[in-house]
Amino acid sequence: MTWTTFRTCEEELALLCGISNLLHWDRAVLMPAAGVEQRALQCGLMSRMYHERLTSDELKREIRTLRAKTPIQQAILERYAWKMGRAEKLPKEHVEELSTLTARAEQAWEKAKQKKDFRIFKPFLERIISLKQKEAALIDKHKHPYEVLLDEYERGMTLAELDIIFARLKRELIPLIRTYAGKKRIITSDVQAQKTITQDIATRILDTKERFLIALSAHPFTTTLGPDDIRITTAFKHDPTFAFLSTAHEAGHALYEGGFGKDLKNTILADAPSLGMHESQSRFWENIICKGMPFWHFYYDFFSKELQLSISHEQFYKRLITVQPSLIRIEADEVTYCMHIIIRYEIEKALIEGSLSVKDIPRAWNDKYKTYLGITPKHDAEGCLQDVHWSQGAFGYFPTYALGSIYAAMLYRALLREHPQLEKDISKGDFSFIKQWLAKKIHRHGAMFLAKDLMRAACGKALDVQDFITYLHRKCAP
Amino acid sequence: MTWTTFRTCEEELALLCGISNLLHWDRAVLMPAAGVEQRALQCGLMSRMYHERLTSDELKREIRTLRAKTPIQQAILERYAWKMGRAEKLPKEHVEELSTLTARAEQAWEKAKQKKDFRIFKPFLERIISLKQKEAALIDKHKHPYEVLLDEYERGMTLAELDIIFARLKRELIPLIRTYAGKKRIITSDVQAQKTITQDIATRILDTKERFLIALSAHPFTTTLGPDDIRITTAFKHDPTFAFLSTAHEAGHALYEGGFGKDLKNTILADAPSLGMHESQSRFWENIICKGMPFWHFYYDFFSKELQLSISHEQFYKRLITVQPSLIRIEADEVTYCMHIIIRYEIEKALIEGSLSVKDIPRAWNDKYKTYLGITPKHDAEGCLQDVHWSQGAFGYFPTYALGSIYAAMLYRALLREHPQLEKDISKGDFSFIKQWLAKKIHRHGAMFLAKDLMRAACGKALDVQDFITYLHRKCAP
Repeated sequence: MTWTTFRTCEEELALLCGISNLLHWDRAVLMPAAGVEQRALQCGLMSRMYHERLTSDELKREIRTLRAKTPIQQAILERYAWKMGRAEKLPKEHVEELSTLTARAEQAWEKAKQKKDFRIFKPFLERIISLKQKEAALIDKHKHPYEVLLDEYERGMTLAELDIIFARLKRELIPLIRTYAGKKRIITSDVQAQKTITQDIATRILDTKERFLIALSAHPFTTTLGPDDIRITTAFKHDPTFAFLSTAHEAGHALYEGGFGKDLKNTILADAPSLGMHESQSRFWENIICKGMPFWHFYYDFFSKELQLSISHEQFYKRLITVQPSLIRIEADEVTYCMHIIIRYEIEKALIEGSLSVKDIPRAWNDKYKTYLGITPKHDAEGCLQDVHWSQGAFGYFPTYALGSIYAAMLYRALLREHPQLEKDISKGDFSFIKQWLAKKIHRHGAMFLAKDLMRAACGKALDVQDFITYLHRKCAP
Repeated sequence: MTWTTFRTCEEELALLCGISNLLHWDRAVLMPAAGVEQRALQCGLMSRMYHERLTSDELKREIRTLRAKTPIQQAILERYAWKMGRAEKLPKEHVEELSTLTARAEQAWEKAKQKKDFRIFKPFLERIISLKQKEAALIDKHKHPYEVLLDEYERGMTLAELDIIFARLKRELIPLIRTYAGKKRIITSDVQAQKTITQDIATRILDTKERFLIALSAHPFTTTLGPDDIRITTAFKHDPTFAFLSTAHEAGHALYEGGFGKDLKNTILADAPSLGMHESQSRFWENIICKGMPFWHFYYDFFSKELQLSISHEQFYKRLITVQPSLIRIEADEVTYCMHIIIRYEIEKALIEGSLSVKDIPRAWNDKYKTYLGITPKHDAEGCLQDVHWSQGAFGYFPTYALGSIYAAMLYRALLREHPQLEKDISKGDFSFIKQWLAKKIHRHGAMFLAKDLMRAACGKALDVQDFITYLHRKCAP
């Protein structure tokens, strides 16, 4: 076995992954409604082929016999060993059962949400949790099962660390929310003007249109078809800040995907080391830049003119950073957002370790919303049925959203230290230092290092919640 | 081996084919420019997987051991045997050499066309022809090599038949062109209005939007991603009749692709029996319906209002059917079109049988245009370099365009005989009889029968050029 034959296998995996992403992107963006059945078969075939190749004896042999001659080769072998190590511990029957179950569970979840009736989803969720518990035990029966699941999304993060982070956040955020809670004014604008501003912010973040495409879909997302074909989607609502900020968010993901080093092309390292790391890049642009005061210094004139807004710069900015406890996670502001995550984390951890049963989710959910945010869902559709994640078997995923915010604040702090006139640059629309720094410190490394090691190298310290806390305080009371 | 396992193989082939088609469609319609390199690798991987499966020992065994219990199963086995019979006679090295060569040849052709310099393309074409001659000999060394190549595109058609058809066409068309040659007036209209009329004609032909999608690309085409996801593209030029007629053309292809019997879904029979048969459906709608007098009876008011045309119904129709000898095939009218095909046929047949050498193509081409159409290209870009086909190794493909026109005229004649008030229906915009008849006689059968057998069953007679001749005479001198 040689690196050349290995590279061929690896390139095929990368190609299959890009093809799967096109199938999904096209389904969300363009596909005629009637195509859904055949598309499901096509997606199934591509992911089966991907997994057959990833877990093939041939590849396993290569990974074991190849000797790394460069740090990149070493990181490649190491990441495969990790990924395949997890995959090969799961019997084929388990993977198939989970895949069939989650496909049906997602439908049941949709119906339950629509009918506001948790009981429709309950039996599916019970079975999923039982399979995920089994999965965790198969992979590593000596660890806390939730930590095993978390590792898939945030490799290297321990449950002990996460508990400390979230305890600290709770302690800090709950009083902050009580102090600054307010209510947002409603603003609206037409779709054509929203198109202009979303194109504009995407171009400011991504520079070129040659490698990126923006399209419309019901829920915004980013996907990578190849190293030079990265697509973001957006959606227009009445409030134009939704499309604007979600485009900035997706463009942050896309800038990261487009920035992996050329030497990582079509390898397993052309990826973020963790979902939290990926989310740090989207939240950096959405929250830290595009909800920051310096940005609106130069941008509000253009923005308000295009959208024909009748509120002042100051009123608009105040509205943008308003802390407003709400029931729906994806509509939450920066401060309350983490509480939505903590609620989900506490519940899903308890479910996986068996200290909470599925039938008690609605009560636990509503209690926590009352305690942490002072509000109560009228029904489960705006409560514990709002997110798709659990129906897909994604336990351990939610925490990465909060980690993204924490990483982003650390990066911003490091940037400010290295380049003190940073906010002056931003207030003139000059993002060049930011982009160069992120490219050099984060993007080009792909998945060469664990998120925590990458962050330590970029920021000169271990994970530190304080940067995020300081950032939020400064934002609430500038 | 059972039909169930065989069906799984066959379905995978169908899925891979749809995925390849999405990769190509997306490249032509949407893909960011920089994605081209990775997309080429993805297309290559999908077609390699398709061919590996098609020529796998497993499938070969199944085809040989399975016993058909139904006429559909019999037709499936028979079509596989034909397709695999051709494929397995070609050594892998031959297929790969041709594939690499044609990829390069297409680039060389583009450059040659752009620089108007045939010499750039000449060495590539020489090598392609030599490989195609070898291919024909490998498949069946007892037949005329051109007939072997033709069989890939128009299965069951002999060279003897084709020679008789084209000799007859030449005899009839050359005097017709001399008598009716005229010159078209120029008309133009804006893109928005062209969008309206192309959407309108597509909807009239296809009825539903649920299974069909229209997009924009440089050259219009139709592709099938799945039995209920069929896509056509269109392009807008100054003259709005281009977009209108080419959309009708592509919608004809799409109606056919969407009409294969449900019992043929994801089998090798969910296809036209030949390219000529496929082309008959596009030309039926483009030429026979949308260039017919009855159609404009009800349609011109809407059309001219949308496009803000200032010429009369009569002037417009006269312009639409004007016979105007021209150098570019894809811009040719219905009458001269076949002469463009005959010229290519005579040249490519001579090249494959070795009676014409590549260096003499430009001279042969220009001589034939002078003799048959009375005009001479100023340079090879508007002469023998205008079409992409030869650079792709597609020899035996051009004749299917003319056969499509002949089949379409036969179908129209049969339709008129069965439903004498057909043109009255058309003049009221009622295509229901036509669609039902085509669905029943042609579409639903897919590739169950050879084109000639399907035509015989639909029209009650063997292939007959006379219907096309009569149709053209009636059109030129109504």
